[in-house]
Amino acid sequence: MATAIRNASPIHFGPFPVTTQVFHLTRYSYALVNLKPILPGHVLVSPRRGVPRVADLTPPEASDLFLTVRRVARMVERVYGASSLNIAIQDGVDAGQSVPHVHAHVIPRKKLDLEARGGVDAVYELLEGEEGDLGRILSEKPGDGTGVVEGKGENGGRRRRFPKVDDEDRRPRSLEEMEQEARFLMAEMEMEKEGDE
Amino acid sequence: MATAIRNASPIHFGPFPVTTQVFHLTRYSYALVNLKPILPGHVLVSPRRGVPRVADLTPPEASDLFLTVRRVARMVERVYGASSLNIAIQDGVDAGQSVPHVHAHVIPRKKLDLEARGGVDAVYELLEGEEGDLGRILSEKPGDGTGVVEGKGENGGRRRRFPKVDDEDRRPRSLEEMEQEARFLMAEMEMEKEGDE
Repeated sequence: MATAIRNASPIHFGPFPVTTQVFHLTRYSYALVNLKPILPGHVLVSPRRGVPRVADLTPPEASDLFLTVRRVARMVERVYGASSLNIAIQDGVDAGQSVPHVHAHVIPRKKLDLEARGGVDAVYELLEGEEGDLGRILSEKPGDGTGVVEGKGENGGRRRRFPKVDDEDRRPRSLEEMEQEARFLMAEMEMEKEGDE
Repeated sequence: MATAIRNASPIHFGPFPVTTQVFHLTRYSYALVNLKPILPGHVLVSPRRGVPRVADLTPPEASDLFLTVRRVARMVERVYGASSLNIAIQDGVDAGQSVPHVHAHVIPRKKLDLEARGGVDAVYELLEGEEGDLGRILSEKPGDGTGVVEGKGENGGRRRRFPKVDDEDRRPRSLEEMEQEARFLMAEMEMEKEGDE
């Protein structure tokens, strides 16, 4: 799989090259680790073709995307010792999408895992701006840990209703750290049955 | 389609019969209107087989579920004049799932549609407990409009971090109102291309 990913490079997430963060590749989809995971094992699954909307996918691409989400979800739930999963797609800018490339968030959940940060549904508040941060570090420089993402809040009509919770604990990870996790998950992914394809 | 749905009845969402709220039926999936839509056109897509987790689906069921989400999403975006969509699955109780039957929320979004209710990402807060409410009205009696759902908050470790916003404006709809919308959406669904299948 490592060879397949290298040979397929460069893989892009929107305008950003992310090849070394990718840990799984199918005919139409790829999975990558996240810059600021909300919880351990929070990863993204995207189509290889960089289209903005789910409706832009061909039926085989759409079908493969969800089967890949499912397989990746099963893996991260096992590896991170979770018991549930959030799967979420912000499909279009007015739904909160910050990088115009279809992507599904896959977030392993455990009982009471966000109790200190707002409860079970705080996961959604924490989702805000993840991809924007990922884009920034990949294209420019490491984030400053403020959680403030350029290009939002002013022209997008977004505003933050709720105070940020413990954002200082979620500093962007280094590329090295992300690549290390990608290599680890690549090996774990090989252990999953490929019966879906 | 109306005949197909009648002939397939009773269709269940978890333990609850929902046949008259269903507006689309495929080999493996169905789509139904919501008791308390967060926004106009907020609907649910489920597998016909009532399993709790995405991992419980067969590959053909999983693939059909997402292609159905996509087709239904395209329809509600058109019919409700939206520009984006939120697609969300709470896969397991520790991710906020309140009815143990796989279901994807499909929510049409417009620019600034939730500005008065907390901003673009308030949609997630508002998601809390929808299915529980649906279950309650179908099985027992109409909701009291408090948004409080039985069986949560005490044993699930959930707690409400944020004050509820305008919940009094989202009283549960009557069965008649839901059936009327289901008939309307059934007709609109017929106008979508069936090229995915």
